[in-house]
Amino acid sequence: MSILDLSTDVVSLTRALVDIESVSRGEQQIADAVEEALRALPHLEVVRHGHTVVARTDLGRAERVVLAGHLDTVPVHDNLPSRLDEATGLLHGLGTCDMKGGDAVILRLAATVPEPVRDVTYVLYEAEEIDEVFNGLRHLTEVAPELLEADFAILMEPSNAVVEAGCQGTLRVEVRATGERAHSARSWKGVNAIHQAAPVLERLRDYEARRPVIDGLEYHEGLNAVGIRGGVAGNVLPDECVVEVNHRFAPDRSAEEAEAYVRGVFEGFEVTLTDLGPAALPGLDRPAAAAFVAAVGGVVNPKFGWTDVARFTALGVPAVNYGPGDPLLAHKAEEHVPVDQVRRCEERLAAWLRGEEATA
Amino acid sequence: MSILDLSTDVVSLTRALVDIESVSRGEQQIADAVEEALRALPHLEVVRHGHTVVARTDLGRAERVVLAGHLDTVPVHDNLPSRLDEATGLLHGLGTCDMKGGDAVILRLAATVPEPVRDVTYVLYEAEEIDEVFNGLRHLTEVAPELLEADFAILMEPSNAVVEAGCQGTLRVEVRATGERAHSARSWKGVNAIHQAAPVLERLRDYEARRPVIDGLEYHEGLNAVGIRGGVAGNVLPDECVVEVNHRFAPDRSAEEAEAYVRGVFEGFEVTLTDLGPAALPGLDRPAAAAFVAAVGGVVNPKFGWTDVARFTALGVPAVNYGPGDPLLAHKAEEHVPVDQVRRCEERLAAWLRGEEATA
Repeated sequence: MSILDLSTDVVSLTRALVDIESVSRGEQQIADAVEEALRALPHLEVVRHGHTVVARTDLGRAERVVLAGHLDTVPVHDNLPSRLDEATGLLHGLGTCDMKGGDAVILRLAATVPEPVRDVTYVLYEAEEIDEVFNGLRHLTEVAPELLEADFAILMEPSNAVVEAGCQGTLRVEVRATGERAHSARSWKGVNAIHQAAPVLERLRDYEARRPVIDGLEYHEGLNAVGIRGGVAGNVLPDECVVEVNHRFAPDRSAEEAEAYVRGVFEGFEVTLTDLGPAALPGLDRPAAAAFVAAVGGVVNPKFGWTDVARFTALGVPAVNYGPGDPLLAHKAEEHVPVDQVRRCEERLAAWLRGEEATA
Repeated sequence: MSILDLSTDVVSLTRALVDIESVSRGEQQIADAVEEALRALPHLEVVRHGHTVVARTDLGRAERVVLAGHLDTVPVHDNLPSRLDEATGLLHGLGTCDMKGGDAVILRLAATVPEPVRDVTYVLYEAEEIDEVFNGLRHLTEVAPELLEADFAILMEPSNAVVEAGCQGTLRVEVRATGERAHSARSWKGVNAIHQAAPVLERLRDYEARRPVIDGLEYHEGLNAVGIRGGVAGNVLPDECVVEVNHRFAPDRSAEEAEAYVRGVFEGFEVTLTDLGPAALPGLDRPAAAAFVAAVGGVVNPKFGWTDVARFTALGVPAVNYGPGDPLLAHKAEEHVPVDQVRRCEERLAAWLRGEEATA
């Protein structure tokens, strides 16, 4: 028998998942447990790629939806094992919020809804928290994209159990100011690259964020220096100053448009693109998405942070974030999740998959 | 017999000194050789402190002058042993310019002018090129300042065999801009410290250097960022940005005045003083200094870089830089010295010490 008992309640299952340490690149044990538990369910076809487990119903329904969650966590920060505070209803511990509460919901649905009105593909994947070359969902899109074919996808990222639609894109550039070295005792013989970078900081300071409304959701862009470096020695005018800039852009702009915008902002400087994740449109005009939103309560917020929903968008599958937990607590030592949110997510998704009316 | 033959010509002696490797903290061999050679001269009293050697005449003259040079070099950079290019008259190699050509001049004068018209204190000291806690001249000012008492001092720093009077002071501060961290996807929740640093770079860019004239010499101040740093992670607004600033100030300002000036420039920011070397007044109004300037040709330039002449000023001894070699070549792999300049320095100083008319 698997060390995961899918017949237990969703909060106990969350604790069981949290208590299997699974820092990125260390997901074997949790993936083994998940795979074993899912293979015990006769109504699912189970496939494994690396430490990513995919389980599917195949009932010939008119629609197929994906429910996806990552199994890995950021590094341990003195926050294991889990600890349930009965007084506050908060479950504390690494991964409670990001995102084993969501994983537990997925596993409970897989076990308890054998005949959903929509075919379901459950995806529990590895390595979301690190360099994207390791990302299990990305890997699937490359080696077995047919496993991700669907009309709609739900990523169980923490969103306070409210639908967060789409996601903003993210790109990083290095903006380089150059000069000529000289001894600082004879500075008029050189050109100080750090002084030359003044307009870069001025343009960042004077930037005004766009806040476009898309499908009724107001996004909020950002343009920020996330790093700056320059300097050769304490008596030398530096010949280079590099500002690392992160731009977050709303889903009405393509990655190419966003890059062109940033290059325009820093016209006159050398701009090198170092990272690029496209935005995802909310896609709320699709019937499957609209039905889901109605089923879980009708409230939708825009997603500011970049998430793997963008990978579904790239496959042509509209996707939203919907999971228990406050995204602002993700990656913090004091990470926790309200158990009520975990239960609510399970109830509403189960009702939606069973074709029942949404609970209030 | 010492490996240094002080009866040889000054260029050969320079080569002999260069070929004794003496990177800072490795001066024992060269100091031993210098001490042995000087102790062989009966008209000198020799004292050694660490790897600093002091040799003095004691003829009861009305004036005493110091001739000082450091024995150490910056690290070897594939530029040893020395190499004399007869065609160009350039002696190549580590320390040829900074400052074993000057050291050779000192040793030749010590050996060939037994009865100078001014009493002379020859100082060959260790560890000028590294952290000043190791500086041999600084050490002497603390343990045996009486050895440095004089009416005038000449530091054999490379100055193209032209007198460079005084020196500019140097100070370093860290200017700190602060903010509040936030995830870059929700940047409106934080304050970006790098953006807050824009005025620091603007004030540096807009700085206009003072060029005060002192004793007929025009100095040229400077205010430069020599380093900048900030950044937490690629998706975080940083809460701190630190600009390291180096101010070079003319000798009409005290260290305290210079510090107050810099604090004024960066008003509104946290400013931390990290390094401070006072300026040295040229002191050309002193008779010994004036006589020396006349003896070596009458041309005087201001010294922009900070040198150990400031240590003499602090002892109340006017001091100038005067030595063979281009200061811009110091610390470069291609360091070299024109042998004509080495010879000219020897001739003019010898004539001055002997009380002869200056050579043309």
